[in-house]
Amino acid sequence: MMQENEYRVQGFRASAVKAGLKKDKALDLALMVSEKETTVAGVFTTNKVVAAPVIVSREHVQNGGARVIIANAGNANACTGNAGLDNARRMAQLVADKLGIGADEVLVASTGVIGQPLNVDRIAEALPSLIDGLSPDGVPDAARAIMTTDSFAKISRFEGIGGGRPYRILGVAKGAGMIMPNMATMLCFLMSDIRIDPHDLKAVLASSVETTFNRISVDGDTSTNDTVLVLANGLAGNRVLTEADLKEFNKGLESVMGELAQMIVRDGEGATKVIHMEIKGAHSASDALKAARTVGNSSLVKTACYGQDPNWGRIMAALGRAEIVMEEETVDIWVDDILIVSAGLGKGEAAEKKAAEIMLKKEYTLTIDLHQGDFEDRMTTCDLTHEYVSINANYRT
Amino acid sequence: MMQENEYRVQGFRASAVKAGLKKDKALDLALMVSEKETTVAGVFTTNKVVAAPVIVSREHVQNGGARVIIANAGNANACTGNAGLDNARRMAQLVADKLGIGADEVLVASTGVIGQPLNVDRIAEALPSLIDGLSPDGVPDAARAIMTTDSFAKISRFEGIGGGRPYRILGVAKGAGMIMPNMATMLCFLMSDIRIDPHDLKAVLASSVETTFNRISVDGDTSTNDTVLVLANGLAGNRVLTEADLKEFNKGLESVMGELAQMIVRDGEGATKVIHMEIKGAHSASDALKAARTVGNSSLVKTACYGQDPNWGRIMAALGRAEIVMEEETVDIWVDDILIVSAGLGKGEAAEKKAAEIMLKKEYTLTIDLHQGDFEDRMTTCDLTHEYVSINANYRT
Repeated sequence: MMQENEYRVQGFRASAVKAGLKKDKALDLALMVSEKETTVAGVFTTNKVVAAPVIVSREHVQNGGARVIIANAGNANACTGNAGLDNARRMAQLVADKLGIGADEVLVASTGVIGQPLNVDRIAEALPSLIDGLSPDGVPDAARAIMTTDSFAKISRFEGIGGGRPYRILGVAKGAGMIMPNMATMLCFLMSDIRIDPHDLKAVLASSVETTFNRISVDGDTSTNDTVLVLANGLAGNRVLTEADLKEFNKGLESVMGELAQMIVRDGEGATKVIHMEIKGAHSASDALKAARTVGNSSLVKTACYGQDPNWGRIMAALGRAEIVMEEETVDIWVDDILIVSAGLGKGEAAEKKAAEIMLKKEYTLTIDLHQGDFEDRMTTCDLTHEYVSINANYRT
Repeated sequence: MMQENEYRVQGFRASAVKAGLKKDKALDLALMVSEKETTVAGVFTTNKVVAAPVIVSREHVQNGGARVIIANAGNANACTGNAGLDNARRMAQLVADKLGIGADEVLVASTGVIGQPLNVDRIAEALPSLIDGLSPDGVPDAARAIMTTDSFAKISRFEGIGGGRPYRILGVAKGAGMIMPNMATMLCFLMSDIRIDPHDLKAVLASSVETTFNRISVDGDTSTNDTVLVLANGLAGNRVLTEADLKEFNKGLESVMGELAQMIVRDGEGATKVIHMEIKGAHSASDALKAARTVGNSSLVKTACYGQDPNWGRIMAALGRAEIVMEEETVDIWVDDILIVSAGLGKGEAAEKKAAEIMLKKEYTLTIDLHQGDFEDRMTTCDLTHEYVSINANYRT
């Protein structure tokens, strides 16, 4: 059973309120505060169109030592020009003033509609009760407040031992399309009490993003607001981390972020299936990733998954346009443990029938062996459904 | 009004029969024959997974001088290995034997289900009546026989004057997804009575493909069977073409192929809208094309078009990930003549309301000016709809 304090990390408090930024008047403003200065690292969208809060948080992460994350849903504060940038800075300043810290110790994040001015006055009005509500048990509420089209709050944790002391990692995330620029996609906030060197934290975060959030896809788009932040306040009191400790911490961060990433796919807009794509035998590491991404993002493969149809011709055709080293006659394809293509040729109706039964499940693995080398990669994707079209055709109306 | 002989070109005859290759027992086998040897050129799929008939036709085009195209629907003869290649060669040989010509004078094309053996015996059985039926007025029937998920037959023509003589170009095409590997996508056969040098024909075809079929998209996939063939039999009796004549012929071929390409988008699987994307002010020619392709293939932009929602944030986000030179604050976006984004900022509700009204139309233009240079490009795309998902989730079942 879940413990009372399962979603606590020492030295962190959080809260959430309804500031009136979401149309449905749900929780829409979240605050996470460390009582002590932290070591901080961040990874941000690679989109050239960058939302105002991303610009501000990127600056503040570089200064180091942030203590607070404030995040709103309902408005992405993206494509809002200089006025938007002023609003993001004002959002940080308001929190800093109330808490008596520097504005550069405040990280900001926004998610929601693009291109409309953020009503910072509502945030100012909501701040006193947001701060009053801060509690060691407030993180699940914060996770709820950052939801947009998400159907459930996403939270995960890890407990490890490093530098002679136990520590925790607690993470929350939102996202239900790899992007909906409209909803400004993917946010992930991680809190830990570990004491860690800033360069190590940065390296571990970057590598964990690569194996988790960079290995999922809902619709192949990327957002203007994607943000992953990790704050470590050192209250675990551990000694300097050894190589082995760092490895363990990396594993822990990867497990939290991996769980959150899988939750995002499972909650993919309109998705009815989670498909794990495994690429084997690629000629190079980049070929393995290209193959995984091209097949995992193909609308035709994704609709076939929705239709529970082991339509391997679409997989072959996607591989053929992936710009990788490949030969049709060496490709093997499995659905879970059922081989449906061997040396580029279909294994026939009986195999496809068994595969179609597996595809009725909510989650399964598509394995592709290219037999061109020893490189592997993976990707988790979802099916393309009527509901995806409904959500994205009708969102703003 | 359409003339009796509108879809004739001198020296060409065509016919179509039901060979029993399509499940619904419609016309599925087409033959196009020139009474005289022709100059021939072809453009084939860039997919690394190449269907057997493409391999065979590519060889025969290189030999030059083909006289016949035989094309079937219902089976793509793709991912069928050596047996598939034997079948494609046998298909050519059967026609050659019956017509008393060389097998390398026969070009073959197939479209339909992938990965299943082509029943060439049915083609052999149907050949006598196919040949019996050859008629100068048979081209529209041939166009019908190559349809798969197409909802209408696609045919277009051009009349010009070159080397002192009038000539015609007649083209047929099939395709309703930029790919459905399952249905093996896009075929286009062009017939002309012009007399033209083979190198000129090749160059003109390549440049016309680039501006027509390479500028449309339904779902961003590419097929294993894509084939464009042009046969010119020289019966117009023209003198050697001048530069000006060649330019005119290029224009003519482009107009026929352009019309056929637009028909394919209009008939895009489940499409309810045709959207012309115009990119202006790009930093380079390749940036212009990348921008057009990235925006035109974005699932989020395409669902917004379906929802008749001028959701320009999705366009900005797609531009931002297109890997082009761009600055958010210089982007202008129009829906037909309504400016909805100026210098990266939304023009507000009134403009969006007018744009939404335009988006009710079946066809409109999205113009994006990047203000980064003088390069332009264009692309015609369609919306992503519930019906697209239905067609592609349920095709094989």
